Amino acid sequence: MIQIGVIGAGSCNNRVAGLAEAVGAEIAKNNAILICGGLGGVMEAAAKGCKAEGGQAIGILPGNRKEDANEYIDLVIVTAMSHARNAIIAQSCDALIAVDGEYGTLSEIALSLKMGKPVVTLESKWDVEGARVAASPQDAVKIAMRLFLTR
Amino acid sequence: MIQIGVIGAGSCNNRVAGLAEAVGAEIAKNNAILICGGLGGVMEAAAKGCKAEGGQAIGILPGNRKEDANEYIDLVIVTAMSHARNAIIAQSCDALIAVDGEYGTLSEIALSLKMGKPVVTLESKWDVEGARVAASPQDAVKIAMRLFLTR
Amino acid sequence: MIQIGVIGAGSCNNRVAGLAEAVGAEIAKNNAILICGGLGGVMEAAAKGCKAEGGQAIGILPGNRKEDANEYIDLVIVTAMSHARNAIIAQSCDALIAVDGEYGTLSEIALSLKMGKPVVTLESKWDVEGARVAASPQDAVKIAMRLFLTR
Amino acid sequence: MIQIGVIGAGSCNNRVAGLAEAVGAEIAKNNAILICGGLGGVMEAAAKGCKAEGGQAIGILPGNRKEDANEYIDLVIVTAMSHARNAIIAQSCDALIAVDGEYGTLSEIALSLKMGKPVVTLESKWDVEGARVAASPQDAVKIAMRLFLTR
Repeated sequence: MIQIGVIGAGSCNNRVAGLAEAVGAEIAKNNAILICGGLGGVMEAAAKGCKAEGGQAIGILPGNRKEDANEYIDLVIVTAMSHARNAIIAQSCDALIAVDGEYGTLSEIALSLKMGKPVVTLESKWDVEGARVAASPQDAVKIAMRLFLTR
Repeated sequence: MIQIGVIGAGSCNNRVAGLAEAVGAEIAKNNAILICGGLGGVMEAAAKGCKAEGGQAIGILPGNRKEDANEYIDLVIVTAMSHARNAIIAQSCDALIAVDGEYGTLSEIALSLKMGKPVVTLESKWDVEGARVAASPQDAVKIAMRLFLTR
Repeated sequence: MIQIGVIGAGSCNNRVAGLAEAVGAEIAKNNAILICGGLGGVMEAAAKGCKAEGGQAIGILPGNRKEDANEYIDLVIVTAMSHARNAIIAQSCDALIAVDGEYGTLSEIALSLKMGKPVVTLESKWDVEGARVAASPQDAVKIAMRLFLTR
Repeated sequence: MIQIGVIGAGSCNNRVAGLAEAVGAEIAKNNAILICGGLGGVMEAAAKGCKAEGGQAIGILPGNRKEDANEYIDLVIVTAMSHARNAIIAQSCDALIAVDGEYGTLSEIALSLKMGKPVVTLESKWDVEGARVAASPQDAVKIAMRLFLTR
């Protein structure tokens, strides 16, 4: 199974949440599995969109409580490793899509690129050489899938 | 979803593999998710048994290659963290079942008990105070489920 | 430099603290560096003994606050990785000495043995095949040093 | 003790090595401890400069072999955690100085800023909001020390 990561901030406005939800939905429609950080904001919206389309959402949590996962997460990985869980997300994904995002997202983008993973950004303020910029949620997933399959 | 871990050595004889396979099957019959280390031996046998009953198996790998997961794993978490991945397995499980096993399994049993997780052993040479000894694969899963649900 | 780990519980009685302090002192007398978990109990006593003899003590913390290190720690590694920090302690030591200890210590003993590290126990209730039992703090350090140097 | 991290690529040209060496020397002159990734390039140059001024250099390695540390490292932390070791470096430092650097360094800069750590860059191609740009190695250490002490 192809595992696509969606990364972004733990809280976000409605517009960004809508984008993340559409990305999650598109991942499910492509029969890929969604991996995210399992908490709120972009992570929750993406998982919600994925579930609405019958997909499966994995949450890789930074803390030590399974209960902290948002309600749309099917499978919870409890790392208890704080920020180091970002490395596990990047390492576990075939490609990653960053939606908006702050320092944590920038860190994840850079780490994923260092690992040689395809990275797509959507409405991100971070413009990192090597990451592909998508014009829409559908475009983001299409690029991520293609970059992985033709790597 | 209840997440049950199966821990044990990366290579094992046929008899132990049969036990692990039966444990995996029983986990699926109980509608729980199987979490394991994703490699061979007890991990592979448990995942095989789980899949045969229509269950879902997660593999949390110590290395950095998704391809190292055995063929019965549905979802792969790539930690690239060597032995530290054992802590992630323990932390992510609602209860753990140790089948046979060597030093790595003993480490995982002790760590899980330290975290306050229910631990059941099956034909393990390690007799650790606090871990429950099961008489059969079915018994092991029954005890693990009950200990978790009545914690 | 030889790096010797001292592992044990985060709280302990005076007798055990005395043993750990003597182990720490002996490590310093052997010009080795002490590595421990950086918190209280056996960890603090060992660091105290090490400092009293002019040695150097490293604390590898499970939490995310440098301030949590006990007062005898010279260098603090802040892992923010909870129990997974135990794997870092084991991996960083040339040999390990377990003083007394509970489940966490048993986990560390087993993990160290799995990594092929020399392990010595002192007044430990855990009797694990492969770990050497020492009769005194001096004996423990002597065995640990010899096992490492002749590995 | 103040712990200052120096981050940068594992291989670098002579000019960058010279800058890193001067940063390491300046850290020692300020009686701070140097923390780095323990390998080559910027890490090795910084440790070399630190040692030349009588300072102490800690290397936090990504791999599982203590022997991989460069020759100027006094104390070796062996994480066996690949890229996740970057989170340990950031978490363990009171302030960080990035010299030049590629994706790994960008990841470390962003992660450190997310943790609220002071970050100073020296001749870095990454211009991240929140990181301070230094004009020289001496300036970098001065800013890092001041940002930490007045935080």
